Amino acid sequence: MRHTISILVDNEFGVLSRIAGLFSGRGFNIESLCVAETIDPKVSQMTIVTTGDDQVVEQITKQLNKLINVIKVSDLTVEEHIERELVLIKVNADAKDRAEILSIIDIFRGKVVDVSPKTYTIEMTGDSEKVNAIVELLRPFGIKEVVRTGKIAMARSPKGGK
Amino acid sequence: MRHTISILVDNEFGVLSRIAGLFSGRGFNIESLCVAETIDPKVSQMTIVTTGDDQVVEQITKQLNKLINVIKVSDLTVEEHIERELVLIKVNADAKDRAEILSIIDIFRGKVVDVSPKTYTIEMTGDSEKVNAIVELLRPFGIKEVVRTGKIAMARSPKGGK
Repeated sequence: MRHTISILVDNEFGVLSRIAGLFSGRGFNIESLCVAETIDPKVSQMTIVTTGDDQVVEQITKQLNKLINVIKVSDLTVEEHIERELVLIKVNADAKDRAEILSIIDIFRGKVVDVSPKTYTIEMTGDSEKVNAIVELLRPFGIKEVVRTGKIAMARSPKGGK
Repeated sequence: MRHTISILVDNEFGVLSRIAGLFSGRGFNIESLCVAETIDPKVSQMTIVTTGDDQVVEQITKQLNKLINVIKVSDLTVEEHIERELVLIKVNADAKDRAEILSIIDIFRGKVVDVSPKTYTIEMTGDSEKVNAIVELLRPFGIKEVVRTGKIAMARSPKGGK
């Protein structure tokens, strides 16, 4: 099963390397990983997407919790959460194809962020399925480059109560 | 100086850990890092933002090039490029503050992606300065959580020629 794990860590040397090593040491590949500062510059937040046996993922999260410099680990897979990623796509845009490409971008609420005589560079956000879908639709035109951030996630707020 | 380094790697165990280790071993902190698949599932793309002495960054990129499983390293800092990151922000939204919060979101072309009786969750993309700016403007309302992807980047296409 695919797991989305959120980790708060001290913003210090070597933390990322130790955490990545813990996954690879168990033979777990990291599908995507984002790490960046939070509003507290001493604390960074990591989002890791990995696929594997639920029990092994549970063991990994327990071991992560024991690492120094790890503040909090949450497996967001088990709770309601919002997922998003950002993608930049550079695609061939011959004059004859431009109208069609622009209509695809429009449907996906993407934006053209750079134009050259032969290419469009597109920015889009969404869940991974939406990103995969636009990539597949643009592929026939000739994709020159795709850069994805990988997924970030945040638990949804409880809807009930005051 | 701040450097944005783009690295293409084989999508294999341990590559991320080795690359992160190379930075921390040199006493370089990674400000942000994104890694995700490209259109070729055997290849992943990493974007690393780090601050440090230009010559040491040059040494690091040379060493990265020597690592097995590293396909290509580019320091995008030295060429024209597009930079973007994605942020999710959960902010307190009392009834009396909602109109003001919505107008800030509108100015930054953000989107409300989740609502609870007491909070808004906002999605926004932009360069790091824009992300920092909206965080500062929303801070007085009470920010509950910020998750950033960290920066991704892509070289701009040459504007001249056919």
